[in-house]
Parts: sequence; C-alpha cells; structure tokens
Amino acid sequence: MNPLWESRFALRARGVTSSIIRELLKLTQRPEVISFAGGLPAAEYFPVERFQEACHRVLANQAHLALQYGPTEGYVPLREMIVERLCRYDICASIDNVLITSGSQQALSLIGMLLINPGDGVLIEQPTYLGALQAFTVFQACYIGVPTDHDGICIGEVPAALRYGPKFMYILPNFQNPAGVTLSAERRTELIRLSQLHGVPIVEDDPYGALRFEGEHLKPLVVTDAEMAATNGPCYTGNVIYLSTFSKTLAPGLRIAWIVAAPNVISKLVQLKQSADLHTSTFNQMVVYEAARDGFIDEHVNKLRGVYRQRRDAMLAALDRYMPPEVSWTHPSGGLFLWAHFPKGVNVRTLFEEAIKRDVAFVPGDSFFTIPNPPPTARLNFSCMDEDRIFEGIRRLSEAIGAIQPSAGPVTVP
Amino acid sequence: MNPLWESRFALRARGVTSSIIRELLKLTQRPEVISFAGGLPAAEYFPVERFQEACHRVLANQAHLALQYGPTEGYVPLREMIVERLCRYDICASIDNVLITSGSQQALSLIGMLLINPGDGVLIEQPTYLGALQAFTVFQACYIGVPTDHDGICIGEVPAALRYGPKFMYILPNFQNPAGVTLSAERRTELIRLSQLHGVPIVEDDPYGALRFEGEHLKPLVVTDAEMAATNGPCYTGNVIYLSTFSKTLAPGLRIAWIVAAPNVISKLVQLKQSADLHTSTFNQMVVYEAARDGFIDEHVNKLRGVYRQRRDAMLAALDRYMPPEVSWTHPSGGLFLWAHFPKGVNVRTLFEEAIKRDVAFVPGDSFFTIPNPPPTARLNFSCMDEDRIFEGIRRLSEAIGAIQPSAGPVTVP
Repeated sequence: MNPLWESRFALRARGVTSSIIRELLKLTQRPEVISFAGGLPAAEYFPVERFQEACHRVLANQAHLALQYGPTEGYVPLREMIVERLCRYDICASIDNVLITSGSQQALSLIGMLLINPGDGVLIEQPTYLGALQAFTVFQACYIGVPTDHDGICIGEVPAALRYGPKFMYILPNFQNPAGVTLSAERRTELIRLSQLHGVPIVEDDPYGALRFEGEHLKPLVVTDAEMAATNGPCYTGNVIYLSTFSKTLAPGLRIAWIVAAPNVISKLVQLKQSADLHTSTFNQMVVYEAARDGFIDEHVNKLRGVYRQRRDAMLAALDRYMPPEVSWTHPSGGLFLWAHFPKGVNVRTLFEEAIKRDVAFVPGDSFFTIPNPPPTARLNFSCMDEDRIFEGIRRLSEAIGAIQPSAGPVTVP
Repeated sequence: MNPLWESRFALRARGVTSSIIRELLKLTQRPEVISFAGGLPAAEYFPVERFQEACHRVLANQAHLALQYGPTEGYVPLREMIVERLCRYDICASIDNVLITSGSQQALSLIGMLLINPGDGVLIEQPTYLGALQAFTVFQACYIGVPTDHDGICIGEVPAALRYGPKFMYILPNFQNPAGVTLSAERRTELIRLSQLHGVPIVEDDPYGALRFEGEHLKPLVVTDAEMAATNGPCYTGNVIYLSTFSKTLAPGLRIAWIVAAPNVISKLVQLKQSADLHTSTFNQMVVYEAARDGFIDEHVNKLRGVYRQRRDAMLAALDRYMPPEVSWTHPSGGLFLWAHFPKGVNVRTLFEEAIKRDVAFVPGDSFFTIPNPPPTARLNFSCMDEDRIFEGIRRLSEAIGAIQPSAGPVTVP
C-alpha cells in the first residue's frame, strides 16, 4: 500500500464507495444460494444462436469496419434502427438525437458529467436506482428525494421539491428499479406540466419499458413533453433526455444502450463521451444490429415477456402463500423487480443475515434511499430464477422473517 | 434547439471541445485522400479468422457468462494473461494490480476522475497525446508543459516544472504519440529519481511498447520505479500507474485495455469505473483472451512489427527524397507516427488546406501543444497505408509545401 495515492485522490473520488449490491453479490455467488439480489436477465434465454450468426456475418463481411476505431456517435445503421423503433412509441427522433453508449450506466455517467456542478441538486424518486446515485455522486450531486407510492412518484410533493432548485429530475416511469411501480398517465402529464412550468428538465430512464406483462402501454415522458411543447407536431425538441438499452431485451454483456436528446445536448455528450472512451465497441454495435434486425428483437422480447410474467406470478403466489400478513409488496406489471415492505422495527440488515444463513438473498431496501432511516424494505428480483427456485427462496425468506420476529413466525404451509 | 440545456451545462462540460483530429478526420474520409492524419492500425492485418474462431468458441462454450453482467475489475483469465505478459517486461504485478478498461481512453478518463481537482496541474510533455488532454480537461486540469527532443522529455527542465506542484506527470516513453520519440534509459532513471524525490507520481502510457522495430527494449518507468523503491525485490508497489492496450496489437474496435496500479489505486478506480460503465463488455474480454492466448498475440505482433517497419522506412525514404532541406523529422524506432518540423513562419493550417486540395492529409502539430504559438509541426501516421500510397502522399505534401513557400518549392524528382 502506498499512502501517497490516497492523499492525492480528488474530492469527487473520495465520496464514491463501492455499491452495496456489488458487495452483497459476492456473498450470493455460491451456487446453492437462491438469489433475488441481482438484477440479471435470464441467461438461459439469451439468443445465443442468433449472436453466433451475427458475429459470423459481421466478421465475414465487414471485419475491417467492425474491428477498427469508429465514430463516437455510434454505428449509423444501429442508430437508424433505434430511431425507427422509437417511432413506434411515438418518439419522433432523427439519428442526430441518438448517441450510442456503453450501457445505460455510461449514459447516466455522461449526463452527470454534463449537468452536475458540485453541490447541484437532482430530484429523485425515493427509492431510486442505485447506479444512478453512484453516477451522479461522482460529480458531487445533492439529492432532493420525493416519496413514491403504487403509482410512482407522489406528484403532489413535486412542487415543494422543485423549490429546492434541482438541476434536473431523474425518473424511472416503467416498472421502476427497485420498486417495480409504474408512473400513472395522469402523473406523467402533471410531471411534464411542472417540468415545463419551472424549466426543470427530466432524465427519463426506461430500461424495462419493452418488458410489459399486462395493461396498456403508457406514453413515455419524452412524448408527452413533445406533445405539450410542440407547435408543429410532436417532434423531439424537448425538455426530456430519454435513455434505454439492449441489456434487458438482448443481453447486458455487450454493453449497448442509447441516449435520445436534443441535438445540442447530444453534441456536448458526444464530446464528453469522446473524452470518456472514444466510442463504444464498433463490433458490438454491429453484432447487436445484426442480431436485432428483421423483427428478431420483437419475437425475442415477446418470449421474454412470457417468461418473466410467469416468474413474477410465481413470486407473487409464493409471497401470498408464505409471508406473514404484516408484510406487503408491489405488483409490477413488467420489468424484473418487486418491492417488499416489512413492518416497522424490522432490521433489514439482520433479516439479510438470517436469509443468507438459509441460502437466500435479496437487496436491503435502504441502499436505494438517500434519507437516513428509510422504511424497512427489500428489492426482490424475479427474472433470473425458475419458478421452483422462486417458491423455495420465498419460503426460506419467510423462515428468516420468522427467525427475527419470533412472534410472527412463518405461516404454516397447509 | 433548446437553449434551456446550454444554461444548465456544468462548468467541466463547457471547457470541452470536439477534438480537432475528429473534425479533420471527417475531411479526410473521402477514399481518394491519402491520409496520414489518423492513428489507425492497418485494418488489412486484423486477425479476422482468429477472431471468428474466438467468437465461436466463446459463444459455443460460455455464452451465459459472456453475455451476462460481469465484474467491474474484468474477466479473471484475461487479467491473469496480462499479469503473465507484464512479467516479461519485468513488471511484477498480481491480478489485484490490474483493471480492464474500455480502451486506454477510459483509463485516462478514470485517472482524471480519480486525481484531478479543478485547477490541479498535470505535468505533460510538449507535444503530448491529444486524447489525454481531452480526458484531463473535462476534470479542469491545468497543464505544466515540458519540451521534448529526440530523447523524449527534456529532463533538465523537469525540476523547474515540478516546482509548480503538479498532481502527477503524464509520460509516453515509447514511440510517443505524436512525436514518435523514445525516452532514453538515462532520462528514465532520472525521471523516477525526481518522481520519488518530490513525491509526484507518474502515469506511464504505453500503447505502442510492443511495436518496436529496432534497438533494445528499454525498461518501463514502472519497473525502474519498483527497482529504485523496493527493499524486497522489484514488486509492484509504486509510484507509477502503467497503461497499455490491445488496440494496437489486436484490434481497437473491441475496446480492451488495462491499468496496472497499486491495489489501493485499483480499488478506487474500480468504484469509479462502476459508476462510469459498470464493466467492460464481458464478451469482448473473453474474445480477446481467446484470440490472444497460446502465443498467437506474439506471432501476430511480430508480423505487425515487420509491416509497420517497412511503412516507416517507406515514409522516411519518401521524406528524404521529396522534402525541401529546411524540413526535418523524427526517426521513430517503433509505433505508428513520426513528427515533421517545418521552418519558422510556416502556417501549418494553411499547409493543411493546401494538402487537402491535393488529397493528402496530416494532423497540424499545434493540436498537441497547450502553449500558444507552438513551433510549426505535423504528425504523420505511417501504419495504415501501403508503401506506394505513402510515397505518393509525401510527394503531394512536398508540393503543398512548395505552394505555400514558393521560394523553397518541391525538390525536383530526379
């Protein structure tokens, strides 16, 4: 160890710590552990053959392009495909609105780099995505938290929060990570009205939007913003930066995601990305394009929706069966996660230790809050485990709850 | 355009501009242009078949690992292979000293994020690598420039520069980008002595070290540092952060590079990388590992050395033949670039315009300096063009020089 280095670390680096999830995941990687802790897509459904063909095609026909340095903005056919697909959600963008990033995490980091001066406020949902907190904390953000309920951010509390002067609002409207809740249509309209009224832009993070199991698709914030702002049709000009990714619809290991924003925002993000990693792997962009094209991604997402819905149903059924009555949980209509609420006074870290003793894992909910003493909660992932394991894991979790709350005890299985 | 955004850009983002090289490259992408402007490896020597096999093997045997989220530190077998290869250069590291990055540009960005508070000084060579300036400028670095000559940084001027209190020194010891010069053995020892004496660490950037055409391999700074600091053998503990990459030895399009540093530096860089992009593509790391293993990379690098040496020789011969006597240039013993010096008073931007009219391109040297009115120079890349094109390009360049200096004129070809 060389103490010279620590004394030279920049202020921004000192505030960053390793993600608690990262540390927990290390504990949960023994194969016998039933882990609801990760946020992993189901590996057994990765379209491996399709990727085999895509790699072969790219290297057989365009190796010199795929293996060489490429433009920072990204591979043009991939950007064109994204534009075409956004159109289905009524997001009317052109390729000048689209920047390819190395996963959505890079999108969040570049947005932090672009917008956050040390001490700037960011309005967030409580709880919110941990990775966004990490990305923004490097740039020394302060957080203005607004509670959420089953319909997403508590819209009535937003005006008061806006009085603290946030630089932007960070919102996950669909099947939110961690809580699994979806922002209602009425709240979307009201949030855009407030954003435009107060001139506070929104970063809309939508990794799971395509993975809806039931109910109607709701307009992305970026569309509502364009409709409410536009004088000549709903063209992308606006107030909202929209993020999405292929990590949940194809595979996270390729690290291909994208940002949709106004051209002046994209230009500056391109300069920042150039400084951050020059460009995202040309090869991976071409492989994702080849794999996704000709309707394959739609078929594949349809299949995933079916699989994840079954797993969600299994988890909901297991919770109904095993959990004591004082525990409640959200009913996500898509995505990868649900959110459990424990009775007041439950120490979730102690519960985690009891759970790990029984080879079952989850993420304690406090990691997703920026307030001290948040309510006792847990994030449960249902996407990467088959139904039997989900049932068994929830049963063990109820035992762990029984162990820390002897009065409640596990519900006797009939 | 939405002016709302510009007013919300963070201070760090305002200082960043698009790389001049990036803009120039757009001008030079017409196929008829003979471009010495890029820094591209020779695409016709990419080991395409080897990558085909590697992709096939990875997806056939380990798809679930390759396509899934992975650890931030990187793929363990790849890190082990890097450790083993570093050993040949007497860099005695363990995998805890190695972090995989998304290209060396990300390494530079993470180092800027780690070390640079706004206004902190960075000691650089004049000229130096533009991408490093971009990476550090985002974090609001100031530059303390030290001139270079044919033996690298002018070591006699380093003590005075250190008095300005730089946070670290950024040094490219082998076949420097842009100047093609190599830091001499004596200067390496003296630089480490000064680094240790004044407690100013060094970031040693070594993308081209494996591409030596002639002469003896010189010890990396990181080795000299360990030898001069260590009481119990030359183990990596030190004062130097070492960077290298597979971009020049295999292919840049996969974006796989690495950082070697003390474990406490690596831990913090891992946290910052987690916030920046979670991890580098698992698939690409595995493909690079499969492609490089079993000695393939050594054979391949040997082949590249031969090709690039021939191209350098062609460029040197063409310069000898066509350039007027008042133009001089460096004789790189490796790498991708040489550096031309023009007589005082030559306006290199005007020369660039004359060159582009003749369908030949280079990078004006001023881009690589942080001082006003640097000497008239140009970076010439010799790696990505065959010998005939190199000869023809240098001939046209001499015509362009003639056009701006009618008195000198092109040398008549015998």
